[in-house]
Amino acid sequence: MKAEIHVTLKRTVLDPQGQTIQRALVSMGHPEIVAVRQGKYFEVELAEDLDPAAARALLDQVAQDILSNPVIEDYRVELKD
Amino acid sequence: MKAEIHVTLKRTVLDPQGQTIQRALVSMGHPEIVAVRQGKYFEVELAEDLDPAAARALLDQVAQDILSNPVIEDYRVELKD
Repeated sequence: MKAEIHVTLKRTVLDPQGQTIQRALVSMGHPEIVAVRQGKYFEVELAEDLDPAAARALLDQVAQDILSNPVIEDYRVELKD
Repeated sequence: MKAEIHVTLKRTVLDPQGQTIQRALVSMGHPEIVAVRQGKYFEVELAEDLDPAAARALLDQVAQDILSNPVIEDYRVELKD
C-alpha cells in the first residue's frame, strides 16, 4: 500500500522560503505568480498486509509525531491504491 | 487560481534522505514502513485573470526551468479551482 503525506506551514505562520521563491519568480519574468508556499512531501510505501484503517492510523501518528512540527505545521495523509 | 507543484526525484535516482527517514521510522517502532521518498511541494497562487491554459503553460515552464532539476527530478503540476 502506498500513501502520500504533505506537511505544510499553518496558514498563520510566515513562510519566508516561499516568499523568496515567489519574489525570485517575479524577478525572472513571471509577475503572474502572486504567492508561493513551500511544504514537504513524502511518498510512503507500507507493508502489503496492513489494512487501510491501520495504515491510516499509523500514518497519522507518524505524520503528527515525527514528520511535522504540530506547533507550526499541518499535515495531510492520503492513502493510494 | 491556485496550483500545486510536486517535485520528486526520478525513480532511478537514489534518495538517501528518504532512506534515512525510513530507517529512522523503523527504528522508532514502525517496521510497517517499507520505503520513503521525499520530495518538494509548492502551493502557488496565480493572478486571477489568467486562463487555465496559460496558467498550465506558465507553471510547466516554471517547474521545469526553475523549481526542478530535470536531470534528476520529475515534476507534476495540478491546477486547483
